[in-house]
Amino acid sequence: MTVVKWNVRAGAYYDSVVLMQLQRGLLELSGVLDAGVVMATQANRDLLATNNLLPADISANPDDLLIVVKADDDNSATEAIGKVDELLARRKSSIVSEDFRPRSLSAAVKQLPEANWVLISVPGRYAAGVAREALELGKHVFLYSDNVSLEDEITLKKSAREKGLLVMGPDCGTAIINGIGLGFANRVRRGSIGVVGASGTGTQAVTAQIHNLGAGISHAIGTGGRDLKSDVGAITAHQALDVLARDPDTKVIALISKPPSPDVATQLISAAQSTGKPVVIYFIGYPAPARKIGNLHFAVSLSEAAEKAVEQLAVNSHQSLMTDKLITGYLRGLFSGGTLAFEMMVGLQASLSPLYSNAPITNYQLLKDPLHSEAHTIIDLGDEFFMVGRLHPMIDNDLRIRRMKQEAADAEVGMILFDVVLGEGSHLDPAGELAPVIKEIREKRIGELKSSGGRVAPNDFGGAYRDHRERGELGELEFVAIVIGTDEDPQNIQLQVSQLEDAGVKVFRTASEAVEYISLKFSHREANQFPPVDLEQLKQPLAGINVGLESFYESLISQGAQAVHVEWKPPAGGNERLASLLAKMKSKKEN
Amino acid sequence: MTVVKWNVRAGAYYDSVVLMQLQRGLLELSGVLDAGVVMATQANRDLLATNNLLPADISANPDDLLIVVKADDDNSATEAIGKVDELLARRKSSIVSEDFRPRSLSAAVKQLPEANWVLISVPGRYAAGVAREALELGKHVFLYSDNVSLEDEITLKKSAREKGLLVMGPDCGTAIINGIGLGFANRVRRGSIGVVGASGTGTQAVTAQIHNLGAGISHAIGTGGRDLKSDVGAITAHQALDVLARDPDTKVIALISKPPSPDVATQLISAAQSTGKPVVIYFIGYPAPARKIGNLHFAVSLSEAAEKAVEQLAVNSHQSLMTDKLITGYLRGLFSGGTLAFEMMVGLQASLSPLYSNAPITNYQLLKDPLHSEAHTIIDLGDEFFMVGRLHPMIDNDLRIRRMKQEAADAEVGMILFDVVLGEGSHLDPAGELAPVIKEIREKRIGELKSSGGRVAPNDFGGAYRDHRERGELGELEFVAIVIGTDEDPQNIQLQVSQLEDAGVKVFRTASEAVEYISLKFSHREANQFPPVDLEQLKQPLAGINVGLESFYESLISQGAQAVHVEWKPPAGGNERLASLLAKMKSKKEN
Repeated sequence: MTVVKWNVRAGAYYDSVVLMQLQRGLLELSGVLDAGVVMATQANRDLLATNNLLPADISANPDDLLIVVKADDDNSATEAIGKVDELLARRKSSIVSEDFRPRSLSAAVKQLPEANWVLISVPGRYAAGVAREALELGKHVFLYSDNVSLEDEITLKKSAREKGLLVMGPDCGTAIINGIGLGFANRVRRGSIGVVGASGTGTQAVTAQIHNLGAGISHAIGTGGRDLKSDVGAITAHQALDVLARDPDTKVIALISKPPSPDVATQLISAAQSTGKPVVIYFIGYPAPARKIGNLHFAVSLSEAAEKAVEQLAVNSHQSLMTDKLITGYLRGLFSGGTLAFEMMVGLQASLSPLYSNAPITNYQLLKDPLHSEAHTIIDLGDEFFMVGRLHPMIDNDLRIRRMKQEAADAEVGMILFDVVLGEGSHLDPAGELAPVIKEIREKRIGELKSSGGRVAPNDFGGAYRDHRERGELGELEFVAIVIGTDEDPQNIQLQVSQLEDAGVKVFRTASEAVEYISLKFSHREANQFPPVDLEQLKQPLAGINVGLESFYESLISQGAQAVHVEWKPPAGGNERLASLLAKMKSKKEN
Repeated sequence: MTVVKWNVRAGAYYDSVVLMQLQRGLLELSGVLDAGVVMATQANRDLLATNNLLPADISANPDDLLIVVKADDDNSATEAIGKVDELLARRKSSIVSEDFRPRSLSAAVKQLPEANWVLISVPGRYAAGVAREALELGKHVFLYSDNVSLEDEITLKKSAREKGLLVMGPDCGTAIINGIGLGFANRVRRGSIGVVGASGTGTQAVTAQIHNLGAGISHAIGTGGRDLKSDVGAITAHQALDVLARDPDTKVIALISKPPSPDVATQLISAAQSTGKPVVIYFIGYPAPARKIGNLHFAVSLSEAAEKAVEQLAVNSHQSLMTDKLITGYLRGLFSGGTLAFEMMVGLQASLSPLYSNAPITNYQLLKDPLHSEAHTIIDLGDEFFMVGRLHPMIDNDLRIRRMKQEAADAEVGMILFDVVLGEGSHLDPAGELAPVIKEIREKRIGELKSSGGRVAPNDFGGAYRDHRERGELGELEFVAIVIGTDEDPQNIQLQVSQLEDAGVKVFRTASEAVEYISLKFSHREANQFPPVDLEQLKQPLAGINVGLESFYESLISQGAQAVHVEWKPPAGGNERLASLLAKMKSKKEN
């Protein structure tokens, strides 16, 4: 009959390698059928239970160590439990031999003054403290640890940004800096593709595939998964794009992430545009807004992201930024076609934020009142809401003309977008009715601009954009139309297009072309107000101080990098009460 | 001083063309500045208000007609309101001259017996009744009307399906049948691309673009926007795919829709696969699962959908269906890489339903208990939940091996998918630990199969698939691995791959290839149990009966189709109370 025995140890810290080795040691003992060595969190207890390793009468706290052995008989089980100390000591002794190792970060810096990176993989609750110390010592941080609080992440990243330092993580699985892999990283040749990755295995899959396709990596900068959430505001991703934009050895950039928050996406896309380099973007699980917007190329899978990046190396044509005047103010889209409105939402939601609609993709985009636009808005005028007892806007232009005038009267509006859908069943001369109205609106706005001192949409970015909107000043008003039709349609498509163009409307024949044009027109880039990451220092041979998983130290050494491993122990040996007491004493001393 | 006057008319029906013409007539009168003629719904009253056309003291019901005039002075306003009857009568007299027109559907059928379609654009509350009558007369229905209830849509479509008839709509804006456009439709050349469109202007944009690219359309079948919701179950889209699959003149199919419900997407994708023809799919606003899955090609914009369809015409290679054994049972994905898990969710969510995860894309995919899979499940074993005091699964295989055994013990599981991420920092021989376990699991399952009478995963579809799962029988268990790495990684990637392959694992080097393989392996098609739509009849010259907007009748005639317009009036002239009384009397008479 099998027997399960266990042992609980409170208040001591063991790193996870030690725990794995203890478990393996126990499994090798004669008569032992299975063993579990875990911190007694609820998740781990549930895991033991699914493996029939959780005795019913066990009592332990989440930060206790729980050792369970299942054996053939009572003797074997008791004997195994009795050997726990011996097994732990065996592990310890192998470490003790390396006692030349520094026991603190500051000691490690003395030992390796040229260190420019600190790799941190200690348990989450200690990680922020170590990272803070690393930043104070002027080092970049690779923060592998998870279970770090969002507040700590924000504080660390803001503090790093002020110093021109990077904090990659928390929960950053991988990076390649200057040819050396940090954490989990594939060995890839050096090359001209820079990667910004808010995802670990995403970056691994893309860098490995780039290598397998014959190209190489300049740097792959990790950000941690939460970097692209609103709270953090993509601090690390922005720093990474900025430094890769300045790096002459990086010709193409790949940006890989789970879907960012909408406001963050907008800013990142603007930042990517202003690098002036081809940027391949893959927001995993987010509908691609287009195949291409200026220098931005959107992928639909990890391997396609790699392929497109390699393709762009070959293209190697410098994509000039749009020098045309940018739009200040909001977009208002007035559509007769519901699907066209939706298609434009999909295409523009990444570039315009906030974007509202009466036919939104996600709930937070829902316009409160279909009759009044807010910020950037796209309206489906053919929605049921408008349609009771009224002809469709593809037949009757009255509703749209009235709404056009309403939007034009709003000084915050910089562009009015609309569709003209030709064909059977539709109005026989929509442009003939719309063009005169547009002409009148544009002339009126230009007249008002002149009389108000002629403040025309400025070419400057960011700040001016916001000021302008806040003050409600008038800018020029641009009209953009998407004309859907064929040369066989009853309306004479050439005549429709030319009437609109004569009224000053920019005309496109597909939604995709309009998406690209508008995205570029609304691109706005805040100037970087923070000290830039020092490119020359980043290109120095990587020298790292490792705190946490020893295997990451061994990996640095095996890659030929200089490295020092800190023989780290948690404050007060992991005893939380004692640690908090020590912290209090320390803070008293400092005051 | 401007003056606003108004007039309310209760209980009478006017079609929306009459209302538009009345409004235009009023605007032409001398002294009139603006006018509104609307059904007095809240939306329309709000619209009047935004145009300063809503007097404060007005009182009207939603089905009253509200006529408002704004004029230079009291006299002009009063005079304009006084002319309403005259203006309405003017419109009426132009119709009266055409009194040879039938006043009922059955009369119209007598006049045009070869009619195969009925086009319906009467107000929503009457539309279902007309459609029911059309189906009873054995006609296909093009249902332009919106504001039709979901219940009516389901009843109509189920009834049509039983008769091998199509109901396109409600709220179907466009279709092209046999070269003739219905509703709003661009004039395009005939050709070999068939379109199934759950969106109006989406279909217009795609068909117009196909024409502009030099190709043509066989049929474009509309479904209405709600067809792809769970409640309706894509009845029309399935019929459309089926008839286009059988049509020898259709070489390529394009399927355009807003994102379907997940269960509907799964079935549609299976149906599209089993057409055996190239199908270009664009689910607008839904992340593309891949660029290509067998004969399916996914687009990221309307114009790309058109381009890909035209491209596929040129390719013209018959894509053979996978003849390999299909999988019965569920997929369980056990990932060490969080992003790889997420990437597979994105790629497989369209093909596998329901699909759960501890790292879901949308909330309804959230797995209740990370320790126990349900249906198709993809687990990120590197999630924080698992990580307290434990080494990452890229270093320590223990957690994954235990979970693999757990999944294998579930007779409903047909495939276990996992990743092996090589490189710096990772385990030095993951395949060496995983392969023996997999071999053992596979041998055990095969042994159990033999002893249980050898019921192996059957090659039959649908029914058997479900029966099998319900009965919890054992099938073969397939293992699929995604190996991420390079030839320079410390693990020797060739050796890793060959160890896995020797254990019977199907190995891919990118997630995309695995997505394609798995999607095809889980493809299941229910046999069509309903009378098919008669292809030969569909290819007869289109002859239509039009009920509602006269312009749709005129459009049929101008395209050279035979057509009859029904001089339709709502029951009891639109008086709801009287209509309900008449309906009761009719139903009494029938009983």
